Amino acid sequence: MNAEIICVGTEILLGDIVDTNSAFISRHLAAMGINLYHHCAVGDNPQRLEEQLAISLSHSDLVILTGGLGPTYDDLTKETVAKHFGRALVPDTDSMERLNSFFSKNGRVMTENNKKQALIPEGGMAVKNDNGTAPGIILEADGKIVILLPGPPREMTAMFTSEIVPYLQKFQSATFVSKNIHIFGMGESQVESMLKDMMVSMENPTVAPYAKTGEVLLRVTASSDSPEHALAIINPVIEKITAVIGKQVIYGIDAESLQKALVLALRQKHLKVATAESCTGGLLSQRVTEIPGSSEVFDCGLVTYSNEQKIKLLSVNPATLEQYGAVSAQTAAEMAENVRKLANADIGLSVTGIAGPGGGTPEKPVGRVYVACSSKNGTAVKELNLGRGTGAERDTIRHLASSHALHMGLAAAEKL
Amino acid sequence: MNAEIICVGTEILLGDIVDTNSAFISRHLAAMGINLYHHCAVGDNPQRLEEQLAISLSHSDLVILTGGLGPTYDDLTKETVAKHFGRALVPDTDSMERLNSFFSKNGRVMTENNKKQALIPEGGMAVKNDNGTAPGIILEADGKIVILLPGPPREMTAMFTSEIVPYLQKFQSATFVSKNIHIFGMGESQVESMLKDMMVSMENPTVAPYAKTGEVLLRVTASSDSPEHALAIINPVIEKITAVIGKQVIYGIDAESLQKALVLALRQKHLKVATAESCTGGLLSQRVTEIPGSSEVFDCGLVTYSNEQKIKLLSVNPATLEQYGAVSAQTAAEMAENVRKLANADIGLSVTGIAGPGGGTPEKPVGRVYVACSSKNGTAVKELNLGRGTGAERDTIRHLASSHALHMGLAAAEKL
Repeated sequence: MNAEIICVGTEILLGDIVDTNSAFISRHLAAMGINLYHHCAVGDNPQRLEEQLAISLSHSDLVILTGGLGPTYDDLTKETVAKHFGRALVPDTDSMERLNSFFSKNGRVMTENNKKQALIPEGGMAVKNDNGTAPGIILEADGKIVILLPGPPREMTAMFTSEIVPYLQKFQSATFVSKNIHIFGMGESQVESMLKDMMVSMENPTVAPYAKTGEVLLRVTASSDSPEHALAIINPVIEKITAVIGKQVIYGIDAESLQKALVLALRQKHLKVATAESCTGGLLSQRVTEIPGSSEVFDCGLVTYSNEQKIKLLSVNPATLEQYGAVSAQTAAEMAENVRKLANADIGLSVTGIAGPGGGTPEKPVGRVYVACSSKNGTAVKELNLGRGTGAERDTIRHLASSHALHMGLAAAEKL
Repeated sequence: MNAEIICVGTEILLGDIVDTNSAFISRHLAAMGINLYHHCAVGDNPQRLEEQLAISLSHSDLVILTGGLGPTYDDLTKETVAKHFGRALVPDTDSMERLNSFFSKNGRVMTENNKKQALIPEGGMAVKNDNGTAPGIILEADGKIVILLPGPPREMTAMFTSEIVPYLQKFQSATFVSKNIHIFGMGESQVESMLKDMMVSMENPTVAPYAKTGEVLLRVTASSDSPEHALAIINPVIEKITAVIGKQVIYGIDAESLQKALVLALRQKHLKVATAESCTGGLLSQRVTEIPGSSEVFDCGLVTYSNEQKIKLLSVNPATLEQYGAVSAQTAAEMAENVRKLANADIGLSVTGIAGPGGGTPEKPVGRVYVACSSKNGTAVKELNLGRGTGAERDTIRHLASSHALHMGLAAAEKL
């Protein structure tokens, strides 16, 4: 099966948003063995969209469109697709009920233009949207499949994973199974140079690396006639990779994220974690608490930006701050120990550092961060140097610092 | 002038990387008043690239290609463009010198395939690359302009800004200026239904809406022969829009974000804010502290997930928790007041609620959140119902709850 993606929205052509939908969909299509030869973006212009749709349908069996399903006059994707196939737009009862219920529950008045969202091309299937008001649509027509998805990534990704992947799997001859190896503490190029020969030579399963901030994900994908057999050829490869790069840099298989791995590890052992943050400003506790069910493992976190609050709320010794400064291994250690005791938790995590762009000195430049982890087994501190000297990396420094803290928490949880 | 962008690279079609180059180039073209009707991505396949190039050149005066200029066998962009215009590839002396100097400076040996990077189509202009080895190329041929740029964003963006923008400015007749109106507390469809006639009828300036979670951005863009005149025709339109939708839903002009607006307002008045969070788990303080310079306005934030910590750290009255529950207007009010006093801040912000997916009851369903704001002028509490009944919206509920708290803080700061 050949596929193409058309992103619809003038905001993409103006560069107001980066299209992340195409990469997301592409990854999923690749994992299902569906060939993709073309991405494109067009504006909210029915004539150019119609022209592109015709070109795409001439190349491909499957055309996936994202965007332009909203309530406003310039949302025209559905209208253009219906017109192309000579279908009328008809109200979908389920979608209309969901819309009514959404507006009444939120005490909002449904304006006339909102009703447009419950219209679908005759013969199409509405796809429910758990995160927004515009349903998706699957239309099988003239031997082709056209799938319309909402533009906002949050709505699109949830719908794609829960509804579109199962629909497309029906057309697959082989079963594709993937396992993700999550790596923290080793750069992408190092992972690649250690595994290059293996990655290039393997055909089934395949091994593909993906880099995200501070992490590397290796995806091992097998195609087979059964999920069991696919797993049977994947598992030895995971073992081989583990032997080559080392167990200590792998924090999980299909773990999703450091925070998810930490919350699961803590839940399994009935442990609690508490956080004390300076430069990350709540990012560390926010990452822990974004995991559903984290209330079982997390009672409290303190964000102490000023020295005064480090002393007052966290009982950091004023002499420590005086002698070593707020950004020091000693302060980080006291923050982690004290928050653990204060919260009566098993693990205390702390972060203190200079996220920039201001505040750096020659001795402690932007990017210098200390993270600490305290448990009954003792307190470990790590010095990090996360700056690149560009001054424009505050978000990255904060993210990496919180990742290191989560990773240290995970290591400590394993030993409790 | 009409333009199109073609991104070249199989890694884009596999979803291994998100194409950020197109958005970057688009923003710059829009600012120069160059119309862009189409983005697309094709793989490292000469036949499909050739086909796309022919289609793009039939629509547009300017085609910008990124990627596929490297030394390896699958880098074929230059070859395909040269062939399309019937031009030979010839060595460019300057580029060859830069390549030689790069390799000798880095103590690396230049392999034969690297020399390929110094070839350009006959009659083209090489564009120097300060951040990599592959030069860019500008080719004016058959009444069209084709620009080839390297794929890595760091190389492409630097080259585009320093070399391509000045080149393209020669073709510009007008100056474009935009102002952004930031709206919170009114949905996109309501904004549109109030402004629809204005948005449809206006030609210069134009008014375009963009929705992001819980917010709407209206961009007013004018084209003129001077920035001063452009502003002179934008400002009355901003006034008119303000009169129609109401001043209270506009939190700033070119404000970037709620947190940025809040931090700026606090800095201007030398005020401090403190936060007390339950369901947002640090997201509120994280948003405040992501703004550089926030340390001037923020000393501390507390994340109290458990009732015990609400009592212990925030001195919430146990009787309040007993009588009204942790998710209540009363608890939210005490949290905001107490954190303000504890931190000796001017404004205390709090959030307590049910982010889901678990924890909801018929009386207090998932999405019920109370946000409070305390200052010397008193304490305001807002009840929010952010759920859609799908259970899959934890992130959105947390984000919207923190946005409401930031917005209340901004309103309170204006009155201090």
